[in-house]
Amino acid sequence: MASKRRSRRAAKGRREQRDELQDFRQIQPGAAPGTLIIEPDAPAPQLSAYAYGADAIVARDPMTLAELPALLGSAPVVWVNVVGLGDVAVIQELGRIFDLHQLTLEDLVHVQRPKLEIMGDRALVIARAPKLDGGVKTEQISLLVGDGYILTAQTGEQRGLFEPVRVRLVTGAGRIRTMGADYMLYALLDTVIDSTFPLLEELGDELELLEDDILQRPEPDCLHRVHKVRHDLLTLRRAVWPLRDVASQLSRTPVPTITDETRVYLRDCYDNVIRAIDLIETYRELSSSLSDLYLSSVGQRTNEVMGLLTIVATIFIPLTFLAGVYGMNFDRASPWNMPELGWRYGYPAFLVANVVLAALMIYVFRRRGWLGGRAP
Amino acid sequence: MASKRRSRRAAKGRREQRDELQDFRQIQPGAAPGTLIIEPDAPAPQLSAYAYGADAIVARDPMTLAELPALLGSAPVVWVNVVGLGDVAVIQELGRIFDLHQLTLEDLVHVQRPKLEIMGDRALVIARAPKLDGGVKTEQISLLVGDGYILTAQTGEQRGLFEPVRVRLVTGAGRIRTMGADYMLYALLDTVIDSTFPLLEELGDELELLEDDILQRPEPDCLHRVHKVRHDLLTLRRAVWPLRDVASQLSRTPVPTITDETRVYLRDCYDNVIRAIDLIETYRELSSSLSDLYLSSVGQRTNEVMGLLTIVATIFIPLTFLAGVYGMNFDRASPWNMPELGWRYGYPAFLVANVVLAALMIYVFRRRGWLGGRAP
Amino acid sequence: MASKRRSRRAAKGRREQRDELQDFRQIQPGAAPGTLIIEPDAPAPQLSAYAYGADAIVARDPMTLAELPALLGSAPVVWVNVVGLGDVAVIQELGRIFDLHQLTLEDLVHVQRPKLEIMGDRALVIARAPKLDGGVKTEQISLLVGDGYILTAQTGEQRGLFEPVRVRLVTGAGRIRTMGADYMLYALLDTVIDSTFPLLEELGDELELLEDDILQRPEPDCLHRVHKVRHDLLTLRRAVWPLRDVASQLSRTPVPTITDETRVYLRDCYDNVIRAIDLIETYRELSSSLSDLYLSSVGQRTNEVMGLLTIVATIFIPLTFLAGVYGMNFDRASPWNMPELGWRYGYPAFLVANVVLAALMIYVFRRRGWLGGRAP
Amino acid sequence: MASKRRSRRAAKGRREQRDELQDFRQIQPGAAPGTLIIEPDAPAPQLSAYAYGADAIVARDPMTLAELPALLGSAPVVWVNVVGLGDVAVIQELGRIFDLHQLTLEDLVHVQRPKLEIMGDRALVIARAPKLDGGVKTEQISLLVGDGYILTAQTGEQRGLFEPVRVRLVTGAGRIRTMGADYMLYALLDTVIDSTFPLLEELGDELELLEDDILQRPEPDCLHRVHKVRHDLLTLRRAVWPLRDVASQLSRTPVPTITDETRVYLRDCYDNVIRAIDLIETYRELSSSLSDLYLSSVGQRTNEVMGLLTIVATIFIPLTFLAGVYGMNFDRASPWNMPELGWRYGYPAFLVANVVLAALMIYVFRRRGWLGGRAP
Amino acid sequence: MASKRRSRRAAKGRREQRDELQDFRQIQPGAAPGTLIIEPDAPAPQLSAYAYGADAIVARDPMTLAELPALLGSAPVVWVNVVGLGDVAVIQELGRIFDLHQLTLEDLVHVQRPKLEIMGDRALVIARAPKLDGGVKTEQISLLVGDGYILTAQTGEQRGLFEPVRVRLVTGAGRIRTMGADYMLYALLDTVIDSTFPLLEELGDELELLEDDILQRPEPDCLHRVHKVRHDLLTLRRAVWPLRDVASQLSRTPVPTITDETRVYLRDCYDNVIRAIDLIETYRELSSSLSDLYLSSVGQRTNEVMGLLTIVATIFIPLTFLAGVYGMNFDRASPWNMPELGWRYGYPAFLVANVVLAALMIYVFRRRGWLGGRAP
Repeated sequence: MASKRRSRRAAKGRREQRDELQDFRQIQPGAAPGTLIIEPDAPAPQLSAYAYGADAIVARDPMTLAELPALLGSAPVVWVNVVGLGDVAVIQELGRIFDLHQLTLEDLVHVQRPKLEIMGDRALVIARAPKLDGGVKTEQISLLVGDGYILTAQTGEQRGLFEPVRVRLVTGAGRIRTMGADYMLYALLDTVIDSTFPLLEELGDELELLEDDILQRPEPDCLHRVHKVRHDLLTLRRAVWPLRDVASQLSRTPVPTITDETRVYLRDCYDNVIRAIDLIETYRELSSSLSDLYLSSVGQRTNEVMGLLTIVATIFIPLTFLAGVYGMNFDRASPWNMPELGWRYGYPAFLVANVVLAALMIYVFRRRGWLGGRAP
Repeated sequence: MASKRRSRRAAKGRREQRDELQDFRQIQPGAAPGTLIIEPDAPAPQLSAYAYGADAIVARDPMTLAELPALLGSAPVVWVNVVGLGDVAVIQELGRIFDLHQLTLEDLVHVQRPKLEIMGDRALVIARAPKLDGGVKTEQISLLVGDGYILTAQTGEQRGLFEPVRVRLVTGAGRIRTMGADYMLYALLDTVIDSTFPLLEELGDELELLEDDILQRPEPDCLHRVHKVRHDLLTLRRAVWPLRDVASQLSRTPVPTITDETRVYLRDCYDNVIRAIDLIETYRELSSSLSDLYLSSVGQRTNEVMGLLTIVATIFIPLTFLAGVYGMNFDRASPWNMPELGWRYGYPAFLVANVVLAALMIYVFRRRGWLGGRAP
Repeated sequence: MASKRRSRRAAKGRREQRDELQDFRQIQPGAAPGTLIIEPDAPAPQLSAYAYGADAIVARDPMTLAELPALLGSAPVVWVNVVGLGDVAVIQELGRIFDLHQLTLEDLVHVQRPKLEIMGDRALVIARAPKLDGGVKTEQISLLVGDGYILTAQTGEQRGLFEPVRVRLVTGAGRIRTMGADYMLYALLDTVIDSTFPLLEELGDELELLEDDILQRPEPDCLHRVHKVRHDLLTLRRAVWPLRDVASQLSRTPVPTITDETRVYLRDCYDNVIRAIDLIETYRELSSSLSDLYLSSVGQRTNEVMGLLTIVATIFIPLTFLAGVYGMNFDRASPWNMPELGWRYGYPAFLVANVVLAALMIYVFRRRGWLGGRAP
Repeated sequence: MASKRRSRRAAKGRREQRDELQDFRQIQPGAAPGTLIIEPDAPAPQLSAYAYGADAIVARDPMTLAELPALLGSAPVVWVNVVGLGDVAVIQELGRIFDLHQLTLEDLVHVQRPKLEIMGDRALVIARAPKLDGGVKTEQISLLVGDGYILTAQTGEQRGLFEPVRVRLVTGAGRIRTMGADYMLYALLDTVIDSTFPLLEELGDELELLEDDILQRPEPDCLHRVHKVRHDLLTLRRAVWPLRDVASQLSRTPVPTITDETRVYLRDCYDNVIRAIDLIETYRELSSSLSDLYLSSVGQRTNEVMGLLTIVATIFIPLTFLAGVYGMNFDRASPWNMPELGWRYGYPAFLVANVVLAALMIYVFRRRGWLGGRAP
Repeated sequence: MASKRRSRRAAKGRREQRDELQDFRQIQPGAAPGTLIIEPDAPAPQLSAYAYGADAIVARDPMTLAELPALLGSAPVVWVNVVGLGDVAVIQELGRIFDLHQLTLEDLVHVQRPKLEIMGDRALVIARAPKLDGGVKTEQISLLVGDGYILTAQTGEQRGLFEPVRVRLVTGAGRIRTMGADYMLYALLDTVIDSTFPLLEELGDELELLEDDILQRPEPDCLHRVHKVRHDLLTLRRAVWPLRDVASQLSRTPVPTITDETRVYLRDCYDNVIRAIDLIETYRELSSSLSDLYLSSVGQRTNEVMGLLTIVATIFIPLTFLAGVYGMNFDRASPWNMPELGWRYGYPAFLVANVVLAALMIYVFRRRGWLGGRAP
């Protein structure tokens, strides 16, 4: 009971971190399909559009929904970007303009597993762009490519994600202006996939730092840090693994609106996904090897501490007993009772005996290798 | 022997919790196939039926078996819902009305692994709806869809499971009234699958709470709780994994009575199953990482306790020995015997020597980092 | 050397338990194929036969080999059951009557991995029926189904295995009499597969009992019991896993002499095999989770014991040192030497100091949570 | 540096044991393919040949290379056996006579992973025959079967390996003389595969012995022995696993020179490989369960030892403190200073107090179950 | 914060070791595809070329880029080798001469996962050649084979890698001069794959040395060394695993410019890759078995040390208590107070009692097997 209440309280106070692994809150058992559930704190949509061809580019940033229909078809390619999904009316209107199924709108708005969906001559790609914010967080990115247009939607946590592509588009760098909407899909998807690598670099650095720390000074929080890295790797893996199928399908099987020329580039995307997965799995293995290493380092230190205690105790316990013996008050009247106490060199003999005894024990310990164990 | 008897007693007294993992009690080796074995305490069947089309709906709730034949065919779709399977006669009569094979009736009544069975132009879906009641419990839900009707049967532990669908049906919300029996199958199956997510939320909360507890105050019952979560995840996994094949087959391969339009919705079902499985596996990995974390936290505390013991003992054991030495009763007649006892400043010198010795040892400990280990 | 000799002795004295995992003793490298090797203590064959159709049944129990040829073909189906395989002559004669390949006879007599072998229009099923006798033991059951007859052979450790089927056959219960030899194959195979579930129930009970024991009073033999359960599960798994392919092939791919009607029943068999495998894997996971739990419970107790030692020792070691100090025999002639001994309230002050010191340490321990750790 | 030098020295002094896991020494990066590298200590080849048919057999044992060409084709089947591969000239001459590719000769001479290679109408099988010599050692066996001949080559460590087959051939036992070269391939391959089972029996016995030892008297070398068994199982697995594909291909896919009749026998081979693999995996699981069991048994003993120390120390530390108190030399002049020392029954009271205190502590320990823990 | 800063510093100071697991630094999210990013410290390209046929060979070593066009086509095969990739202009010019896609140039220059890419009638193989330099490092090797030429590019860390092939080519040893560019591809790829085996030998030696060390004197750095080996095996595995698909595709599926004759040799390559993978996995299992062994050895030593402490303490604690008792200053005036002190043989009796008590305890310890535990 109390435990449950505590659970709820904790759950409430931590809503943000939980998002990553509990991204299914919008699911309400029994609700009608296609019901759009908007988080109250979701940011309002900001629209922008770029209608471009090899020669010219028209940028509307920001854009209102009313401008969109006129723009579509005005140039070889129109890229419509929606940042923030906090307004059902706007989403529904977009659905009307682009003629989208109610379930597709639900895919855009609710959290999904990354996937590729072919709908007639259009393709919908759902991906997740990771970023590091305390732990690994991921933002859902939807890309819908049709004949002459591409619609991208994101929840808005990483507003700058597509900035490099926008700059290349506006400045006309590279071949982006001369190619179709499918190449744009590639350029954007590649940006999402590549954004995994800086995170992997951070996690790789943390693993190396952890390795150093564990080998030099294993502190109690090392395992916690290993656990955190593993948690982050799990989140990352959930975001990247399904992209493997997406990229593989895009680059290998015939998908409408994707030309063979772009397919070559998408194969590059696929290679990158494979490398990211490869690294994630390698890091996972490393992290579990590190937690073994930590436990053994700690065990090692317990050993050292125990060893010291044992040696000190083992040496002094017999000596203390001896001292206790000569502190007894046996009646010195009888000649049998503790005659040593009356010897002329009794005390020096006692001291010598102690030193000899201690030296002997240290010698035995050293031979058994129990003293050497303390040296690093 | 005694162990066996105890085993039986324990098994008896715990029949309820066992149901989840020992759901095969109805199997009697060598019994004729199709023998229906009813638990004595199974609730009696309660029938209800909804005959509906786009325009009208006739509800019979409760309904008697005699009313059923007249209802079938009276409207585009008839949904017959049976809650409670504790009466062989009723089951057999249903089998006669719907023309079911004896083995199919056995599938309805006895506990099965979730599966999809295509029987001519009909499809039978067996699923398990999980709920949290102490641990994760699952209830068997059978859905038989034919041309113009859908028959659902459940054992009756979660009577309210289909309530939201019933409300949508009666109020005419959404498109449920305008579509066929296959869409009803989707709506009900989706409800069963979605009912997994609130449980996953509970388990996810418990895992996070456990993580906090383990990092801040690792109590002896933490591992027990981890074990319980893992047990629950195993039960959930057994219920959800087989649904993957069911949903995949329903949405991808041609199944009679399932239209292409509904197939789009069933693909949504499939995505949800995949996400649930994904989460279950992720939670399983987290829980095993947590049990590592706990063991290390406990080891850490043992270390601290051991460290304190070692330091106190190591400092005082030599001092106690010294005190013991000066408590010896060597004959002071001989000038060699313990002259220190007669010195003017013997006692102060002893005290100073003690303080110096203790300070020296504390200094050594601090340098080796054994004292720092106690600080969090 | 000595180790080897011991190994041999131990191996000899334990021949029976070993059978399960060393069921390959009949293999002699380089022996001609088809050589039948009979264990000296194998029971002599007991034959029985049932020639039956929908209307009539002729039972020969026991039967001599000479009666067999006349019986074959005298009724729609003849079931020949051989219990005990300890006589090469009988086996060879059976091989002649049923026209069996020498390697097939070897399959009947020697221990095999469960498998399905299609030989022309006949099918041979090798299965293993498990029973609990100390640990899990398995008995090889061979079923050869041809046109109008079924031959079953077992080594004879579970003579009552097919009794329920025999009763159904003789009393004419169910549809067994009206169907062909393939249905008989189903009925017998189903009996073998279902005989796994009572064992799984025993193992499940033992796992639950173990969980209780480990949580309440972790005794040294708990891990041994976990190990035994795991050993039993391994044996069971070796018997059941290969049956998956057997049942899948029988129910899904076209096999001669198996009619479509029986195939429906065999699919039921397949479902049961899958459930058994499912449970075995779940129990294996539970048992490994339990051994973690045990190790942690034991570690917990070590912790408690260590904690008590530490507290008692840490409190009394300084006090004992103090008492030792005031037991020293410093010459009281000098005013610097132990003036406390002469104070009027020296002894009460000493006692009070001790109590204060002890209370202080207990307070510190309680604050650090080291005393709370002992409470369950 | 020093570590590397030690490594080299150790590596040198242990060349023999290493062979099993470092069987790739003959690989020289950049060397021309087909270069035959002979170990200096490889035994010289000993040739023998058997030209046989149903009626007659001509044996040449030993045989010189010059005799071989005349023998080939003189009978339905010619079996040429080469034991020892220590002479490049002989190998090259064999290659010329049998018209072998340079890479095939390399396969014969250098250590390979077991495999099946189809070369036109000939088939080359590379297998590894295991034996127990300290640890598991394996010897490479090559079998080349063509139209009317079979060539076998082995390095010579197990000269008697094919002896049972030779005896069957010479005495004409079984059907070996009446069948072709493909049946000979089966007979020899079966001998190689069956030679795995005696080893598995040894390893199984060792595992059982280990289980007894660990449960009764866990000695420090138990884990070493478990590690050794695991090492042996790894070696065995490397030898047997690839044979699965070999036997499967030979018995299932059409291979030239293998008749359907022999294929039935090869299926038996395949079953045996599967059983061997099955057992190896089962033993590997058992051995890892055993190492858990050992660690827990050792932990158990540490617990017992710790428990004893705790009880003895906890009982005597307070008593010793009491004795220390009454050994203090407080000035008895003041009536407040240790009046107990002057009581008439002071000493008996002290003794009684001690006994009561000790009894009380033992009672508490027994209630907490800490004393019961010591009983086995 | 501070942790992050430390992370960055550590990351910076260790750039070299990190290369192996963070070989993706050249990826810049959002950069235009085909952008060549050259490390500032990458060595300048050194070109060499060999135009050869069966009769003649023309060597240009070193060669300037200007010489290349004339050379191509001047002989049946031209091998162009580029060592060092530190000059964008040279790479671009090579791309122009060989007509390479911008993404192919990126593949050559940036770190890739090993792969095979078929581009029209040309094939590109990306491999990684491992070497041991502290830990395992790998160098990217690209091989582009077309009609009559082969272009190889490496970053330059292992300049001598292809030396043996060059020598065979120049001296005309083997068949390398008489075969086409595809055979050259085989020869070079084989060299890269074979270079894995000396590393595996080193790692195998280290594992054996570790086994010895752990069994004889388990030092604290053993687990660190195991961790290092495991790290190296992970790196090696990442380099070798993808080669499996490359070699399999080259040897089994039809690839342009690869003749059937060369395919036979490439099958040999494939076998070697499989053996390397096999060994890597075996070593990984061994290393995890070793880390278990180490932890148990350490636990064993803790046990020994604890055992000694327990025995010494358990024997002397009661004796010390006894000595303390007879050191008490009870008033000898009362005949009840410590009459033993006045006995004639009190002291000898005390000594005898001590010896008897100690002997008794040693006897009990020996019976329980706690003393035997110390013997190795």
